[in-house]
Amino acid sequence: MTTFDQMLTQNHTYAAQHTPRPGPAPVRRLALVTCMDARIDPVAAFGLAEGDAHILRNAGASITDDVLRSLAISQRRLGTAQIAIVLHTGCGMDGFDDEAFRAELNDAGGRQPTWDVPGFTDLDDQARRAVEAVRSCQWLPHRDDVQGYEFDVATGRLR
Amino acid sequence: MTTFDQMLTQNHTYAAQHTPRPGPAPVRRLALVTCMDARIDPVAAFGLAEGDAHILRNAGASITDDVLRSLAISQRRLGTAQIAIVLHTGCGMDGFDDEAFRAELNDAGGRQPTWDVPGFTDLDDQARRAVEAVRSCQWLPHRDDVQGYEFDVATGRLR
Repeated sequence: MTTFDQMLTQNHTYAAQHTPRPGPAPVRRLALVTCMDARIDPVAAFGLAEGDAHILRNAGASITDDVLRSLAISQRRLGTAQIAIVLHTGCGMDGFDDEAFRAELNDAGGRQPTWDVPGFTDLDDQARRAVEAVRSCQWLPHRDDVQGYEFDVATGRLR
Repeated sequence: MTTFDQMLTQNHTYAAQHTPRPGPAPVRRLALVTCMDARIDPVAAFGLAEGDAHILRNAGASITDDVLRSLAISQRRLGTAQIAIVLHTGCGMDGFDDEAFRAELNDAGGRQPTWDVPGFTDLDDQARRAVEAVRSCQWLPHRDDVQGYEFDVATGRLR
């Protein structure tokens, strides 16, 4: 069975026991930003239930304009007021050479990459920068409750 | 207890039973793009296990440059070769007026919003556009296995 077929089969089992949530506004008024890394399951690892939080994910939990756009919609249209940013050990963006990567994409053809999302070398420092990037973003009405975390993919611990 | 305290408390329980995955490469070689909506739990709803897939999320499952950047890293650095894009019913981007929103952010101060991520009015059409945006992106080496889905937040069904 292909991955796509499996997704649909598993979804039938899920849907049979599904209880719809009353609306789109996250119950805990939380938006959580984390990495796309396959080893992170925010619902299980951070004890969030369906309906609790907006969850935003990209390569590196980088605070890009797309993340800030999504956070602004989350706060201004759907009532969230707290932000958690969860970076993790063993991240592919640790030591990543974005300049070389953009050159690689440029060689691959199509549009020229427009972003500037450098990798990092110090996880603590990167977490501080991410929190600061969100706290200084005037598009967001709620910036008092912004917390940065590190998830250890070896131990499963958040700190 | 605050939301942040609860996350840490729940994480202790999770970490006590945590089994580390061998590495960062997704087992099913899948990258899944979906919306940040709180009612979507990809692991439960689509039968994905920890370690199976990169999961990318933003407002609307919009195929922005940040999503294409993350997909390019996913395929070129971490070996994924299939892409699933999951839009959903009741999405906040359905009928969203991005131009008015950017003007609102502009009034809020700080940098001027740089993106152009319009809302949509037809979910089927939006899903087709999203698949086409990924299939036509030359930054991605693997574009044969790209599937678009719609998740119904009322029934929990994927189609």
